[in-house]
Amino acid sequence: MKACTESFEIATRGKGTYEITAEVERVVRNSGVKTGVATVFIQHTSASLVIYENADASARADLHRFFERLVPEGEEYYIHTAEGGDDTTSHLKMVLTRTSETIPIGQGRLALGTWQGIFVFEHRNASHRRSIAVSVIGE
Amino acid sequence: MKACTESFEIATRGKGTYEITAEVERVVRNSGVKTGVATVFIQHTSASLVIYENADASARADLHRFFERLVPEGEEYYIHTAEGGDDTTSHLKMVLTRTSETIPIGQGRLALGTWQGIFVFEHRNASHRRSIAVSVIGE
Amino acid sequence: MKACTESFEIATRGKGTYEITAEVERVVRNSGVKTGVATVFIQHTSASLVIYENADASARADLHRFFERLVPEGEEYYIHTAEGGDDTTSHLKMVLTRTSETIPIGQGRLALGTWQGIFVFEHRNASHRRSIAVSVIGE
Repeated sequence: MKACTESFEIATRGKGTYEITAEVERVVRNSGVKTGVATVFIQHTSASLVIYENADASARADLHRFFERLVPEGEEYYIHTAEGGDDTTSHLKMVLTRTSETIPIGQGRLALGTWQGIFVFEHRNASHRRSIAVSVIGE
Repeated sequence: MKACTESFEIATRGKGTYEITAEVERVVRNSGVKTGVATVFIQHTSASLVIYENADASARADLHRFFERLVPEGEEYYIHTAEGGDDTTSHLKMVLTRTSETIPIGQGRLALGTWQGIFVFEHRNASHRRSIAVSVIGE
Repeated sequence: MKACTESFEIATRGKGTYEITAEVERVVRNSGVKTGVATVFIQHTSASLVIYENADASARADLHRFFERLVPEGEEYYIHTAEGGDDTTSHLKMVLTRTSETIPIGQGRLALGTWQGIFVFEHRNASHRRSIAVSVIGE
């Protein structure tokens, strides 16, 4: 049994989804763990994680549009807008999706389904560097 | 300390929730782990997991209706509809609920609250077989 | 490698968010684990967990208001209202946020980002005692 934690950064260029499956797989491979779990954790409150359909980009286009409608910028009741119209909306979109995901590892690989990819969901308009911690535990 | 991963399938018959608490408990029992965690992971992007009130079925009836209203089929802005009107909506309902849940294990049992059950939340109209991976780690 | 599970209770006084970061940090410190993960799990279906901006209280005021609008009390289609107008809405708000979060541990501390705090999100109007289980696994 072993436990290790690594982190990596990705650059985002405005609202949208950015796949990180390969980066997480690399951490799992480096760990040498064959059976266990990988926890992916995003260290931010204005970006989140989703495990989403990664075969057809139109699925993610709908995701982006759905969240713009569910959590539109400019609602008059928002008060947390010191950093702009995408400030409070970023936190709200984050809390509706995920900060952590834990994925089983079998035979040294993430046990993802055929169409599942891991994505950072960026909610801010400006470019950012996002830090993701990955903990692997198992044997 | 030990780690093990098992998976099982359940048959779903259209939109709704299907309890899997007993199946997850069985994996925990088989593992022999007394203290640790169980991670439940659904390997699909058009079905999800929820931990929900399991005593009164009316609670889940409201859940089903709420999600139909929050993510209705047939919105004109959807483009990911190759597999039907429940295609993109399935992914959107999935991403608003959960793909993984991690549950503490104490005294060899899931540390669920009195009213908590684990459910597969099926978002497609057609019948499906859904695969759920369960990883148990502990001692 | 070791695994331990502890639980604690907090008192809530109506709808809102209640920070528990210090309580979770204390469980991690007591465990002696330097590298691993902490799973935080709330044993209820009418309260949930969120990892949210903890620097500026206005961010949480917007969170509370957003959820009141997204899941308003008194919708005529609700049937699960035996315990009042905040009965089914509590479950719906819970399922849109989180029951479990798993957070990497590095150098004996939770690897939270600068602005991330862990909160219980209470969805009931009345005061409650809420039980949170924390499992720590690592070395």
